[in-house]
Order: sequence, then structure tokens, then C-alpha cells
Amino acid sequence: MISREEFTQVKEETLAYFKKANIVLTDEEIDRIEVADFGLNRINEFGLQLIEYVNTERCCAKDLVLLPHQTCPEHLHPPVKDSPGKEETFRCRFGTVYLYVPGPETTNPKATIPVDKQHTFTVWNEIVLNEGEQYTLEPNTPHWFQAGEEGSIISEFSTKSTDENDIFTDEEIKRIPVVK
Amino acid sequence: MISREEFTQVKEETLAYFKKANIVLTDEEIDRIEVADFGLNRINEFGLQLIEYVNTERCCAKDLVLLPHQTCPEHLHPPVKDSPGKEETFRCRFGTVYLYVPGPETTNPKATIPVDKQHTFTVWNEIVLNEGEQYTLEPNTPHWFQAGEEGSIISEFSTKSTDENDIFTDEEIKRIPVVK
Ligand SMILES: [Zn+2]
Ligand SMILES: [Zn+2]
Repeated sequence: MISREEFTQVKEETLAYFKKANIVLTDEEIDRIEVADFGLNRINEFGLQLIEYVNTERCCAKDLVLLPHQTCPEHLHPPVKDSPGKEETFRCRFGTVYLYVPGPETTNPKATIPVDKQHTFTVWNEIVLNEGEQYTLEPNTPHWFQAGEEGSIISEFSTKSTDENDIFTDEEIKRIPVVK
Repeated sequence: MISREEFTQVKEETLAYFKKANIVLTDEEIDRIEVADFGLNRINEFGLQLIEYVNTERCCAKDLVLLPHQTCPEHLHPPVKDSPGKEETFRCRFGTVYLYVPGPETTNPKATIPVDKQHTFTVWNEIVLNEGEQYTLEPNTPHWFQAGEEGSIISEFSTKSTDENDIFTDEEIKRIPVVK
């Protein structure tokens, strides 16, 4: 569980990223920025900050912020009831993002993972997203991503988000806890 | 039909808006920016510029640019086959947008329409979107929008776009012609 002090610190950093990128949020949106530490209490290594703009039955849009070298852990979006699962497009708005998906393992990947967590990262086909570049993920595809040294801002365009259905490779991650 | 000279001029203005807003496009995207004059040949009054980032069977995202006081004409997105029709969220990223939807007619609306085209605008319930503000439209809802004096940039998050199915109130508009 992230502490109040850490939450405040990370939220301030997140707001600075949005400001730098000229992304304007309403006061109501600033109040509900999510800081997710995935229950690991290692926010600077494993975490994700985001604002969700819309999430209807049919589509969803968010802007994500990653701090320098911060990693969103490996997960997938499985089929749920009548839906084939969440389809996601990641568009890099600022900085560089290293995205990993199934496929041939990239030699000398740019992202690094602490030794104690390496077993929870199983896909190592690297896709580099510079500013203005994007990638669309089919449902049910394992993926994870890490920011470069400047951190990054990513627009996520997707079908409906149902975070409670996401499946993380790391069994220590039970759900996405959010401290607000 | 828009002339090559007008197209080039409007595209340059569009790129300047994206640059001012720190929105980075790839060269491939710059090449396929759409300038739509809706076949009316009055681009500074009735027109829309946009880049489509993604448009799959399930969802779509675009950034739209409107020049100062430029209007996207009234239209709706009808049910098509198994789909209830396109659902759209407009998020104002820069400038001010005046969006009009069904409901009580707003007295003294901010947008103005040339007299000869007023009969093609039938909904006058005004929603003002300043930077960071947004509005979600259900399918099959007539709507139109006009930029304020600074012009505007709007992110559109939606279900699949099928422009050929859009129904415009103005019968002079047959489809969305695009000069590239
Ligand atoms: Zn995901
Ligand atoms: Zn529309």
C-alpha cells in the first residue's frame, strides 16, 4: 500500500508531466488522478499514474504517465462474457516507451527489471515508441511497458476498461489498488 | 471541391495548431491529415481538419482541428447493421468549442451561421467546451460544432468511424470529400 506522502509526491510529479505536455485537466479530473502501485509498494519501480477521460460500455480513453524507468507490470485483458477482451492502442505523447509483447525475444532490451521480479516478465519482444508513435494490442495478449529516462506520457485508446478482470503474471499483484 | 492552394494553406495552419499544442505527429501521419470541406467549397466557414490515429472494428481516436469560427456541419451517426451507431466523446484540448445538441434552444448562442445555411442547423442547445472539458454523444444524435475565435483542437474518442454512413442535415453535403 502506498503511503499518503508517496501518493502526494507522485501525484505532483504526474501533474508536472501533464503541464509540460500542455495537457489541461479540470479540477475534478485532477482530484481523481489514479496512482497505482499494484499492491507492491515499490511505486518508483512498478507503478502507473493515469487520468481516465471516458469509459463507456463501448470505448475508453486515458492518458497515462510513467516516471523515469517506471514499469507497468505484465498483464493481459482476457475475454469477459460476450466481449473478446480489451483492445488497447498506446500512443506515445512524450518521452520514450519500451513496450513488450509476445514474439522473438529482443537481445539487449532497453528495459531492465530487478532480479527478484524477473520471473514475472515472460514476453520480451521489444517495441520502441517514440513521440508520435503508437501500437495496437489485440485482446488476450500479454504485455508490459517501461518508460525511458525522461519518463513518458501515453494516450490509451481502447474498448471498455474493466480493471478487475486484468490478469497479472505476478501473483503478488491481486488487483489494482488505488490510493486517492 | 477545395483547391490545391487552399488545401496547402489549411494544412499548414493545421500543423501550426498541432505544434502549438505539443501534439507530435509522425511524417506518415502528417501526409494523411484530412482537410474536409464537405463538398461546399467554403472551407473557412464549413470544414474540419483531422488526423485519425486508430480506427478498428471496435474503437477509434482522432485529433480534430477547427480554424477560428470554422463549423463542422450538423450530422448524426445512425445505426448500421448490428451497431447502434457511432458514440463520440469530444474533449477540448485547445481553445473553445461550441457544441450543439438536441434540447432547449439556447438564447444568444455563441456560434453564428451564414443566413443561407441556417436552415441546415436544427439543434441549438449549446454546450461550451473549454480546455479540458468534454462531452459524450449517444449514437443517432444530431450535432454540430464551431470553434471560438482562437480556433480549437478536439480529441475525439469513439467507436468505429464509418464516415460514409454519416447523415448530414444539409442536402448539399453528399459525403465527406477529402483532398490529400
Ligand atoms: Zn493493458
Ligand atoms: Zn459526429
